[in-house]
Amino acid sequence: MSFSDQYQKRIRYIEGVLREYLPRQEGHQKIIMEAMEYSLMAGGKRLRPMLMMESFRFFGGEDRIVEPFMAAIEMIHTYSLVHDDLPAMDNDEYRRGRKTTHVVYGEDMGILAGDALLNYAFETACRAFDTGAENSVRIGHAMKILASKAGIYGMIGGQVVDVKSAGQNVDGGMLDFIYRLKTGALIEASVMIGAVLAGAGEEETEKMEQIASKIGMAFQIQDDILDVTSTTEILGKPVHSDEKNKKTTYVTWKGLEEAKKEVACMTEEAVGILHTINRESGFLEELFHWLIYREK
Amino acid sequence: MSFSDQYQKRIRYIEGVLREYLPRQEGHQKIIMEAMEYSLMAGGKRLRPMLMMESFRFFGGEDRIVEPFMAAIEMIHTYSLVHDDLPAMDNDEYRRGRKTTHVVYGEDMGILAGDALLNYAFETACRAFDTGAENSVRIGHAMKILASKAGIYGMIGGQVVDVKSAGQNVDGGMLDFIYRLKTGALIEASVMIGAVLAGAGEEETEKMEQIASKIGMAFQIQDDILDVTSTTEILGKPVHSDEKNKKTTYVTWKGLEEAKKEVACMTEEAVGILHTINRESGFLEELFHWLIYREK
Repeated sequence: MSFSDQYQKRIRYIEGVLREYLPRQEGHQKIIMEAMEYSLMAGGKRLRPMLMMESFRFFGGEDRIVEPFMAAIEMIHTYSLVHDDLPAMDNDEYRRGRKTTHVVYGEDMGILAGDALLNYAFETACRAFDTGAENSVRIGHAMKILASKAGIYGMIGGQVVDVKSAGQNVDGGMLDFIYRLKTGALIEASVMIGAVLAGAGEEETEKMEQIASKIGMAFQIQDDILDVTSTTEILGKPVHSDEKNKKTTYVTWKGLEEAKKEVACMTEEAVGILHTINRESGFLEELFHWLIYREK
Repeated sequence: MSFSDQYQKRIRYIEGVLREYLPRQEGHQKIIMEAMEYSLMAGGKRLRPMLMMESFRFFGGEDRIVEPFMAAIEMIHTYSLVHDDLPAMDNDEYRRGRKTTHVVYGEDMGILAGDALLNYAFETACRAFDTGAENSVRIGHAMKILASKAGIYGMIGGQVVDVKSAGQNVDGGMLDFIYRLKTGALIEASVMIGAVLAGAGEEETEKMEQIASKIGMAFQIQDDILDVTSTTEILGKPVHSDEKNKKTTYVTWKGLEEAKKEVACMTEEAVGILHTINRESGFLEELFHWLIYREK
């Protein structure tokens, strides 16, 4: 099976998992369930649950204990987009060609739908505890990783600095900080949780964190590159938006060629670490390459 | 020691716990830690952590495993107020005589501070796992209660219906639903988590849920009563606000005398259930009475 077929097969499986864990649309509060589904089922690369699943399989995980966490991390990623789009934040009316959540459901429901998705992520992850008392320790460990990487020392922290530095001169160190937290932290959480739930040891989990940190950074720099080199048709969103918004990016900071070198270098380093773990890295390694050398 | 002295002593202890679990104000994202502290340390009755602690002690709990959960539930209560005050929601400029979080830190940071507090609540609760693997099962159980009572089937669900029914004719059934979820759910979570962490059984935990459901309802109806019978001087906030906002309350629905009877009846029922549990109910019972027959 080609990479593309394997990837599509996984996307279908992940969307099934997300649907399974979405709350039923019922009760007086039904509208919030609708808004959650509208936000969560808007498509996207499903990068985080896919990385989690592949990391879980990489370490020999075979049961379904990882599924509630796959749904949870996508819910957290989604809530961050819903709140990011709000009028007081980026004030975006469209995302992936569809109206944003607060445009469809109102600003109050946009705020509450984000809150609901964040809370429901933890509620969903907690369902892993139903798999049996013998798994409680590793689930607790996974829960800690999820909460810390999504919070003020992870994704939210990066978002805060990104918002606060809008329109300001951002230096390289600050850009690194924002990328590492805003994008990197949830990618790190994904592969770490997959590893922990499959029973990987501390050393292996740390290696996965390092790998994901490099992959996350390369992924984000590639975003900056595509904004300069791609076309609106291929990308499905306006190009040259960073230039228009006078945003500091890796490309404006280091130049296009240097940025491309950085992506290649980080990917090579990440794969190098992956090879030090004595496991069959097949699809996971292909996925890294695809994520980074993607054209959209 | 008088009830008031015992209560004040507990408030001091709880504020110490909250301070201990607040993140240090450091790093590029320091402003979000400041906004979290500003919101969390604004005073208040500390009702939820106090009920949790007393329920924990009631069931013989003696160690500090409950403390991260005490901090967590107050963080969740606080984030709900921060988001509730936002311009797109109630648009409140003052709370407890201080400017609201978004007025001080900006609307974007108001949204992010709420998100940060909600996420940090789970991050904080996870610290209970550090007490040892032997506690993992009961901590997992407590985590499930926290997440479900705070979410779309609990507090957020109540908030959604409350927001959606503003300015509409609310019938008794709907009012019950809003009170039970918006106020009741976190009070139920408080006593249930205290019980579970102290090792109470399923039957006892269910009894605590029933007790808290009645106490929560009586507490909320007493709020409606005080809005009619008290003065602005005693209450520290404007009275007759429900009438001004044309809000349906228990008092407008059933009349003042009937509302008072309901409060007395529910409290009696709650204490009745409490007495069926073979434990020393001293301070917990006094606390129930104080919460309900308070004058402000």
